[in-house]
Amino acid sequence: MRVIGIDPGLRNLGWGVIEVDGARLRHIANGIIHSEGTDLAKRLVVLHAGLTAVIATHRPEAAAVEQTFVNKDAVATLKLGQARGIALLVPAQAGLEIGEYAPNAVKKAVVGVGHADKGQVQHMVRHQLPGVVFDGPDAADALAIAICHAHHLQSARRASAAMLGRGALEITAGQARIRRAGA
Amino acid sequence: MRVIGIDPGLRNLGWGVIEVDGARLRHIANGIIHSEGTDLAKRLVVLHAGLTAVIATHRPEAAAVEQTFVNKDAVATLKLGQARGIALLVPAQAGLEIGEYAPNAVKKAVVGVGHADKGQVQHMVRHQLPGVVFDGPDAADALAIAICHAHHLQSARRASAAMLGRGALEITAGQARIRRAGA
Repeated sequence: MRVIGIDPGLRNLGWGVIEVDGARLRHIANGIIHSEGTDLAKRLVVLHAGLTAVIATHRPEAAAVEQTFVNKDAVATLKLGQARGIALLVPAQAGLEIGEYAPNAVKKAVVGVGHADKGQVQHMVRHQLPGVVFDGPDAADALAIAICHAHHLQSARRASAAMLGRGALEITAGQARIRRAGA
Repeated sequence: MRVIGIDPGLRNLGWGVIEVDGARLRHIANGIIHSEGTDLAKRLVVLHAGLTAVIATHRPEAAAVEQTFVNKDAVATLKLGQARGIALLVPAQAGLEIGEYAPNAVKKAVVGVGHADKGQVQHMVRHQLPGVVFDGPDAADALAIAICHAHHLQSARRASAAMLGRGALEITAGQARIRRAGA
């Protein structure tokens, strides 16, 4: 399964695509979509067109977007919200389900602790995706988000397999009961 | 010239289209695009598709979007930012120039004072667009934004006409000087 991770930002929107094959991960591509200038609407068009092209090229089957850290700077939060709207819109337009993860959840999934610094995260992303070259820090973050989503999907699959196993046992028990009732 | 006004919101995105012919305004259409549910990305897709259809149907040549009031509720600001990103993206994707106006500027343009209440704004929108029926309060706000933009475009046209007039005078004065120098 191919997963795209997206680190939303108005100036630099990072993206990273990985291939998930059971527990094995493989790097496909990563990059940054830049937008500059004073015309906010045109910058949003650049982000939308860029991310649409990335998804058309690499055809991911699932997406994950970092949850935005809201702070007291309301103007910065609004700006980031506008970029994040595009980061959610584009994969949803392509019909992808989107996972959302807090920055600490991403660090915990990749490094093992939620308070890891950027250097540790990049080190572990390189370890899990041998040979990867980052287009920049935002692209490295995006790959970390994709890895986090891959772990999450594996856990969900294991959990549903376990549920199915339990269900099968219950059916057997039910059949046993029916047999007993009919006996 | 046809102008669309947009009042961005995640649950209710208001829009209103008017025809501007010199100082005369005419109502074309207004409405609200609703989005509900817990899947934010899908809600953004609904807003994007809805607004794209409105622009394709009514073919405005200019757009205006209300500036968002940022407050201390960072989560609400982020949510509104995500909806506002779509409200800016769609007209820009259609190649429209977008004016942005603070709520007080809209009230001042429509009512004459920046602290008018919603009832006064709706009364003046009805006065300027005879026969209009609002799809809801957000659609009325969107029409007010379109009217504000129409006033702004008229002022800009008058100012540029005045500038052109002054430029012509300066050229005449320059030519007079040249003639004198050659005399």
